[in-house]
Formats: sequence, structure tokens, C-alpha cells
Amino acid sequence: MTLDGLLERHGGWLESGPEEGPVISSRVRLARNLSDTTFPGWASKEVRDRVWNEVVQAFDSMETDTEFLRWRMDELKTLERELLFERHLISAELAERKSGSGLFVSEDECRAVMVNEEDHIRLQSLQPGLNLQKALDGAEALDDDLEKTLTYAFSSKLGYLTACPSNVGTGMRASVMLHLPGLCLTEEIKPVINAVSKIGLAVRGMWGEGSEAAGHMFQISNQITLGKTEVEIISHLDQIVLEVIEHEKNARLRLMESQQIRVHDHIGRAYGILAHAAMMNSNEALDLLSGLRLGIDLGLMPEIARRDIDQLLIRIQPAHLQKAAGSMLSPEERDIKRAQLIRLFLDGSPDNGNGH
Amino acid sequence: MTLDGLLERHGGWLESGPEEGPVISSRVRLARNLSDTTFPGWASKEVRDRVWNEVVQAFDSMETDTEFLRWRMDELKTLERELLFERHLISAELAERKSGSGLFVSEDECRAVMVNEEDHIRLQSLQPGLNLQKALDGAEALDDDLEKTLTYAFSSKLGYLTACPSNVGTGMRASVMLHLPGLCLTEEIKPVINAVSKIGLAVRGMWGEGSEAAGHMFQISNQITLGKTEVEIISHLDQIVLEVIEHEKNARLRLMESQQIRVHDHIGRAYGILAHAAMMNSNEALDLLSGLRLGIDLGLMPEIARRDIDQLLIRIQPAHLQKAAGSMLSPEERDIKRAQLIRLFLDGSPDNGNGH
Repeated sequence: MTLDGLLERHGGWLESGPEEGPVISSRVRLARNLSDTTFPGWASKEVRDRVWNEVVQAFDSMETDTEFLRWRMDELKTLERELLFERHLISAELAERKSGSGLFVSEDECRAVMVNEEDHIRLQSLQPGLNLQKALDGAEALDDDLEKTLTYAFSSKLGYLTACPSNVGTGMRASVMLHLPGLCLTEEIKPVINAVSKIGLAVRGMWGEGSEAAGHMFQISNQITLGKTEVEIISHLDQIVLEVIEHEKNARLRLMESQQIRVHDHIGRAYGILAHAAMMNSNEALDLLSGLRLGIDLGLMPEIARRDIDQLLIRIQPAHLQKAAGSMLSPEERDIKRAQLIRLFLDGSPDNGNGH
Repeated sequence: MTLDGLLERHGGWLESGPEEGPVISSRVRLARNLSDTTFPGWASKEVRDRVWNEVVQAFDSMETDTEFLRWRMDELKTLERELLFERHLISAELAERKSGSGLFVSEDECRAVMVNEEDHIRLQSLQPGLNLQKALDGAEALDDDLEKTLTYAFSSKLGYLTACPSNVGTGMRASVMLHLPGLCLTEEIKPVINAVSKIGLAVRGMWGEGSEAAGHMFQISNQITLGKTEVEIISHLDQIVLEVIEHEKNARLRLMESQQIRVHDHIGRAYGILAHAAMMNSNEALDLLSGLRLGIDLGLMPEIARRDIDQLLIRIQPAHLQKAAGSMLSPEERDIKRAQLIRLFLDGSPDNGNGH
């Protein structure tokens, strides 16, 4: 399958999953490095190329039914790298590195390996909804498969060695992407973020920063990678996320009990603007689609599927809009295409900008 | 006909009229006082009552086919006085005065006489669209009819004598209510207001003040009442208003040429929010309905009649909403009723707050 083929579908991590109302997806990332090999940041072009080739060989000799697509960054156009970034398959850092840097990704986009990012190998496993254990299982299975061929830098005392000391040990970062409009509308998000931060987890907006997160989307992840097992880390994260979900559900209940009209108004306006605007920037689209997503969770939008909104959140991003248009677009042109795409999604007619 | 009967209809000045796109209505007001009688502001209750009775007698002895409804302010409830104010039939000052103050109004609401406001008689004549001459004709005909019975305070040197020196002479104030969204969107409204002000005309927002006018509605009126004939005054006003209309039309043309998408966006969003909000305050409703009205003028809203919007602008006001609900409403309750009324108008279904 080609990159274009990939784009025609949505990632498997946007299928149905546990707690898919407040939880978009769960992710486990493992950092790995090859033994006796300079970390990518200090490695020569030759070393980086050798690392790429070794990973290629590991994939080629892997006995698996899963097909992995692969691209070297230096054979991709800027727009294509941006597309992969917008699909959460590569980091901004990888997109900028070229020599020897590349990506392997399963057709369902649930597993991916970045080569020569900060570490030689950054392996990620994504699952829909709240399912850290399954994400970890997927990561570990691929990790085991790669280790059949590759020799990792590993210390019996410290664990996996990584370019940045903060990743040493398990080399694992587990995270959950949450949609928390209830806590945002009740203005309870700040204390929740503060509480979660105090117990060693990081909270950041998926787009934007902290409590100003566009689209009310937040990522909660572990900070500590050393001194705990992988299972302990995800079990702790899982427990905290369940508590945050509980808070979110309570916030929604209270909103519907005491401010039902305000909630209807919020959601109705979001729908009205999305269905009739002729231009819309990213941040506004994220915020309004967040409103629609809340409406779906509250049963007010029976005609719209939640996961369709989540896919739209991917497709309204700049590179996706430009890929769909088949040309580079100015920010204003993108705002027009974005509004068109959303209108088309909501009522099936692309030219609805005049309100009727 | 009763006050309730009046409310079930719209004023005749909201029928079709010349230039009814940019011009809502034309108005001529005459200030008159009875000779040898203290002005209302200084008059005793007895004098004010006598003035009221004299005007009653003048209407009773009038030979006309037009039926005039009449109310003394002290026999109306607060809500009823507010209703008359919202329909532009009485001033806030009259609504506050009670003893001897009252209103006569023709069934079509095109002519009205306030008694014991600032002057003994404030006679107004309204016409749809730009039609100052017809408004003046209507005012003068009624004025002549009243003068058959009443003796006005008149000086052969100064003209009609009035409580405030600024009205002495013709006692006439002519005004035109304009909808100027084009000049507001292109931000050319301030220079236009300044230019018009410099040649002796007053410009004010119909709701709100100056260039911050809610709903992009402005009233242009003469300042000078002395030293010119009525016909000279309205002819000057008419000429200036035609120039403002020209500016407004040019602004709209330029908007559609150079910023068509922005205009579509503005109008589409106005429609979307109006059709789906669950609560809306007055100012927002005025602004969004102004957007819709512009859309109608530009041919983007073929299903909606311009004058229906103008009637809605009357019906979404607080007293009208409360009268329709049959009870007093808190500001929040009014915001909910206002949104409901607008949704009902736009798609015929009253409960559309959730966006579908």
C-alpha cells in the first residue's frame, strides 16, 4: 500500500474501543537503541544509514502476517512528512531529520517504528479507547520480533539505555488521549490537571498547551520510566485516567442537571456554525467539533457517529487538506476548504456557505 | 381594536416601501403645544388632564375614516407601556409620565399622537422605506385635522412654540431608519457618520450608540427646525440619505467583489447560530438578524422575506417576548424564548436547540 492508500482510510486506533466517549486512544511508546552504536543525535551519516539498514533487515526477516509500509524521510516530500505527522505516526523531530531517518507503519496504523529519531528506534503501539494493556501487548510483541535480529543497548542495572536520561529504564512512555469538554465547560480542568501532575503524570493539550487546549483534547502520560515495571506504569496510568473519566462524567451530569439549556446552546451553536460557515481556522474547528462530540456523547446528535468526528479532526489539518486538494494552499484557502469539508460531512452538500 | 389586537399584527410602516433594502422606514414628528397653556413639564395635574381632554375632544370631533386607538398611560400596566415603546409608538419619557399623558394611534400604526410628553402634542407619521414626503403629508393632514379644534401656540416670527428651544419653528423632526451592514463590515461607517454630522444632521444607532449600533441600524434626522420650511428640511434629509444609500450599495458591491467568501461566511454563520442557538440576548440577535437581512438583500436567502426579519426585530424585544409568554420573564428566560422564537421563524420547529 502506498501513502495515498493509507490516506484513504482511517487509523485502526479510531475504531470502537473501551470508554471511547471520553477516551480517543491509548498509546505505548518504547525507546530502543542498538548496542555499541552512537545515538542518532551524535552519529555520522554512515552510522545512521547502517542503523536504518539493520532495522530494514529486522523487518524483512520478521515472521508476521502484518505488512509494514516503510519510508525514508529523505524520499518523502515535505507535505508527505506533514501528513504522517498529522496522523500521529511520526514526530516533528523525525520529520526534520533526513539521513537514515525513516518510518515503518502497519497498514492499520496501530503500530509504527520511527528510526533515527532521538533514539535509534521509537516503537509505538496505538489502541482505540482506553486499552493500555493491549497497546503494551502490541508494542512488546513487535519489540520482541525486532529483538530477534537486533541487539539492544541494555544495562542489567538500568534497563534500556536511551539518548535522553529521562527515558532510561523501561524506555516506555504510555499515554492516553482524552476528550474532556465537561471539565473544560465547568472550569474544573485546572485543578484536575494540577492533581494529575502532582502524582508524577504529565498532562498536555493535544493541540495547544495546558488548560487552553484546543478541542478540549488532553494527553496524560507517565513521566517516570525507571524503577517500575511496564505493567506497574500502565496500571498506575490506567487508574488515574479512570479517575479523570469519572470526574469528566460527573461534570457532564452536573452540566445537564443544572445548565441543560446552556449545554444545548453550546452544542447547537457549534452545529450551526460548522454547518454554515464558509471559512474556518483550525482552532475554531477543533473547538466546535469538540462541542459536536460532546453532543453525541450526551445523545443529542443521534445522526452523527463519534468516530466520524474523530476522523474529521485528522482530515481538517493543513497537510490533509492540501493533499485532498492536490495543491499547496494558503492559510485562507485552507480555511475555506476546511469549512467546505465540514459542511459536506454534516449535510452532504459541499456548497452550503450561504446558510441554506 | 385592543392593545392585544395591535400586537397580533405588524405596523403598516413595515409594508413594502421605496429602497426597503437599506431603508426600514421614514418618520416625521411634529411638536405642538396648546396656546396659553403651561408646557407639560411645568404644568399641574389639572392642566395636564385638561390638555388630554382637549385632545380627546379633537379626535372625537375629527371627520376621518381612520380609527384611532387611545390609551392614557395611567391605565396601562408597565408591560403594556413597554410594548408601545418597543413598537416605536411612544417615547421612554411618555412611558414614565402618567397624569394626563397618553397615546392616540391609528390601527395601522402609521400615525400616532403622544399627549403630554415634553410638548402637549407629539405627532408622528411613519412610512415604509424611504418616503419622507408621504410621511410629511400624513403628519400634516393629521395636524390640520387636530387644528380644526385645537389652538396651537404659534408665533408669526418664530413659528410653533415648543418646550425645548431646539424644536421651535417647524417643530419638525424628520428621520430615516437605515440598515447599513455594508458600511459597518467595510468599516467605513465612521467617516460617513462624521460627514453626515458635519452638515447639520444627527446620526445615532437605533439600538446602542453611534458606530457601535447593534444590528447595524442607524437613524439619520434633521437637527435644525427653525429658518427652513418643512419641505426644505425633508428634501435636504432625503438627498443626504440617498447619498448614504449610494455609499452603502457601493460598500456591498465591493464586499461581494473582493471578499465574497467573507460575506458568505458572515451570513452563513449568522443563519447557523440563529437556527440552532438555545439562548440569545438582544444585542446578539440584532446583529445576527442584521446579517440575515444583508443576505436577503444580496439574494443569498431567497426563502426568507426581508420584512419578516424586520417584524422579528420588533417581536424579539423583552416586552413583546413577555406578552407572548403571558408572564414576566427573567433576562435568562427571555434569552431562551428569544432563541425559540427565532428558531421557529427560521425552520418552523420550536425545539431545535440541539442542532438537529
